[in-house]
Amino acid sequence: MSVRLIDTYAKPFLSEKEYEYMQAQLNAAHTTLQERSGAGNAFLGWVDLPRDYDKEEYARIKKAAAKIQKSCDVFIVIGIGGSYLGARAVVEFLKSPLYNNLKKDTPDIYFSGCNISASNMQELLAICEGRDVCINVISKSGTTTEPAVAFRIFREFLEKKYGTEGARERIFVTTDRARGTLKGFADAMGYETFVVPDDVGGRFSVLSAVGLLPIAVSGVEIDELMAGATAAREALAEPDLTKNDCYKYAALRNALSRRGKTTEILVGYEPYLQMLTEWWKQLYGESEGKDGKGIFPASVIFSTDLHSLGQYIQDGVRNLFETVVWVKESGTKQPIPHDPQNIDGLNFLSGKDLNYVNEMAKQGTLFAHVDGGVPNLVIELEDRSPRSLGYLLYFFEKACAISGYLLGVNPFDQPGVEAYKKNMFALLGKPGYEEQKNALEARISAQK
Amino acid sequence: MSVRLIDTYAKPFLSEKEYEYMQAQLNAAHTTLQERSGAGNAFLGWVDLPRDYDKEEYARIKKAAAKIQKSCDVFIVIGIGGSYLGARAVVEFLKSPLYNNLKKDTPDIYFSGCNISASNMQELLAICEGRDVCINVISKSGTTTEPAVAFRIFREFLEKKYGTEGARERIFVTTDRARGTLKGFADAMGYETFVVPDDVGGRFSVLSAVGLLPIAVSGVEIDELMAGATAAREALAEPDLTKNDCYKYAALRNALSRRGKTTEILVGYEPYLQMLTEWWKQLYGESEGKDGKGIFPASVIFSTDLHSLGQYIQDGVRNLFETVVWVKESGTKQPIPHDPQNIDGLNFLSGKDLNYVNEMAKQGTLFAHVDGGVPNLVIELEDRSPRSLGYLLYFFEKACAISGYLLGVNPFDQPGVEAYKKNMFALLGKPGYEEQKNALEARISAQK
Repeated sequence: MSVRLIDTYAKPFLSEKEYEYMQAQLNAAHTTLQERSGAGNAFLGWVDLPRDYDKEEYARIKKAAAKIQKSCDVFIVIGIGGSYLGARAVVEFLKSPLYNNLKKDTPDIYFSGCNISASNMQELLAICEGRDVCINVISKSGTTTEPAVAFRIFREFLEKKYGTEGARERIFVTTDRARGTLKGFADAMGYETFVVPDDVGGRFSVLSAVGLLPIAVSGVEIDELMAGATAAREALAEPDLTKNDCYKYAALRNALSRRGKTTEILVGYEPYLQMLTEWWKQLYGESEGKDGKGIFPASVIFSTDLHSLGQYIQDGVRNLFETVVWVKESGTKQPIPHDPQNIDGLNFLSGKDLNYVNEMAKQGTLFAHVDGGVPNLVIELEDRSPRSLGYLLYFFEKACAISGYLLGVNPFDQPGVEAYKKNMFALLGKPGYEEQKNALEARISAQK
Repeated sequence: MSVRLIDTYAKPFLSEKEYEYMQAQLNAAHTTLQERSGAGNAFLGWVDLPRDYDKEEYARIKKAAAKIQKSCDVFIVIGIGGSYLGARAVVEFLKSPLYNNLKKDTPDIYFSGCNISASNMQELLAICEGRDVCINVISKSGTTTEPAVAFRIFREFLEKKYGTEGARERIFVTTDRARGTLKGFADAMGYETFVVPDDVGGRFSVLSAVGLLPIAVSGVEIDELMAGATAAREALAEPDLTKNDCYKYAALRNALSRRGKTTEILVGYEPYLQMLTEWWKQLYGESEGKDGKGIFPASVIFSTDLHSLGQYIQDGVRNLFETVVWVKESGTKQPIPHDPQNIDGLNFLSGKDLNYVNEMAKQGTLFAHVDGGVPNLVIELEDRSPRSLGYLLYFFEKACAISGYLLGVNPFDQPGVEAYKKNMFALLGKPGYEEQKNALEARISAQK
């Protein structure tokens, strides 16, 4: 098994019977998911995606990735939320957070359309200057403000540089299968298109074309990623928590939160895990944070953040638990040089591999935090391979669905995301929002 | 005034009398700080640092920065916690989070010694290959594991490349004024040294040589940064919260947390604010997270994270408040192109500046989150200048000290950071830790 849950460091905070009591609830959540009878059941496409994905499109993704690799120096991925976090998490995990700074045979990859920053946009345009560029715009409707604005700007950039004909070969569109203005426009312009599936929400879409095209451009073997997800889909199919670590994770995090551990910190011990923690924060925060409920998702990278949030975790308010994602075989080795003068007193580490030191830091931190009153779950990956990562992505997705049903929410909607958008559109004077605009402007006046 | 606190969006969650009641406590905290009579009073050097900094050293910092700018392509800053977060936050805020990817006249700057990652180390070494390199190692004792290991590796790299003589000109050491093995070694080797002041803790050290040397290398005008801090030091001197926004921030966050708003999310609306939120998380988390107390510090960048944590903030557990850092004049402008086909329906924005859209997103989000039950404080900066940022850094430092005294903790120690280190040293077999090693190994065996 490429992913394993270790509960040794959570057990002191739970009683045996809580495991038993959770099983009945797990069975119910399992049935709800299995029979597709629960809230949000129109969005369960991710469950069988590793088996039922569109094989014709999958082959086109690989072909398009090869074409992009050949024809550009810079690949701009335009998307927000689930339309960029999965791809970025996978590229950083399997390649590097310094991917764009390292020499390589594949294009630099930058993510745009995920903010409203003038300076970020101008910097990306400066980076593209004098270099060959392709773009992939990812938006189901094509009307989400951030990616739509970025698409306007980069389409203009490409058409100026290559002409409409040339730009056609450099624009790749991932959008609705049939509906939506972006789909219509892409077809009219002759852009190659890929599909945001109807039954897969953004935060569950990393293994669809949404994630796979950018991931393939970075040189990751997407066959391996899918193979890992397929293995997880098969391995994590039964509800018995003593045999299914994914369900156990869902059960234990709910049990801990019901004991008042209401913030979960996802912990990585390598910088390459940072964007994965961001992907996880969307997955869990957006799935569970509703109806006044939900575990608050936070994240840290150790040992870096042991020197910033470490003090709080060790000694602050005891409403926290941690989930450590630990990669057993990181691959790279780095021995510590010997220093004859031993000025730092660290010669007892001379010749030792940094991975070994990192592992002892992890082990020492587990003991310290448990002793400090913070339960720790450990999710252990075999290695830093696309197969293990594919397994982990599916593991987290399925655990999230089960966890949401345990909590008693619809894990597949996100009604709260509209609230700021409506206000923003009104304030920006979008046609159709006149009434709200007047109301908000009256509120602003009243403040003065 | 270059920094202003707006409490309009927190007021609905507090009563007028709470402001009054907090004033007496503010007065007490103020006196404690002013008379240096409180816990941690050996670490108040930051209070007068903008006035009393070492002028001779300051001139040497500028000279060293100019020398480094001339003599290298890559500048490696080695430090962890407060020894890198401040510099990185300032460089990203004033230059760019994409600083290393942009064309410029100043060296690339990478931060090392802030993790135990073999892959990160090897990538940095690969980036240095074939390029001219200088390093700045920042460690008060010289014995902290992460920077000490990185210093071993980069010193070896430099000595191989340039010889001992050549390396001497490329190694800059920021450490204790007189004690410690690193200071002794640096003097013996003839490295130029700078001082980690005795009375300034790591998380308060950004305006000392710790932060200023790397910041100056990036081309930031450190005179302006210091001028901003000086202005803040003078402006934020009286305890009356109606006249001192820094004290008001300290009072309101304590008042909110006592009402059960126990997690504070620092919000930026620009990617260039991200590392500043990390610096802030260390400052507040490490200062307040002790004795079972403290507000849990989290952070987001909007609009990016409105599409990940936005759902939770809008509709999840109501134990949150937000503090928005808003920069009024971001400098750069980016107009939105017109699209005759209007495929995204956004032509009502044609020709509008992205900053305007960003501001409406901020205003819309403030209303949405307040309506959703999340109090919002807004800290407004005049512009994205070193002067405004210097002011803000001091504002946050002083508010943190006052806030810690209001909470009833020692804001200047971090005893909890030692817990994992002791365990790690024991597990690694550090001489002198034999007894703890046996105890921990017995615990590991017992788990099996």
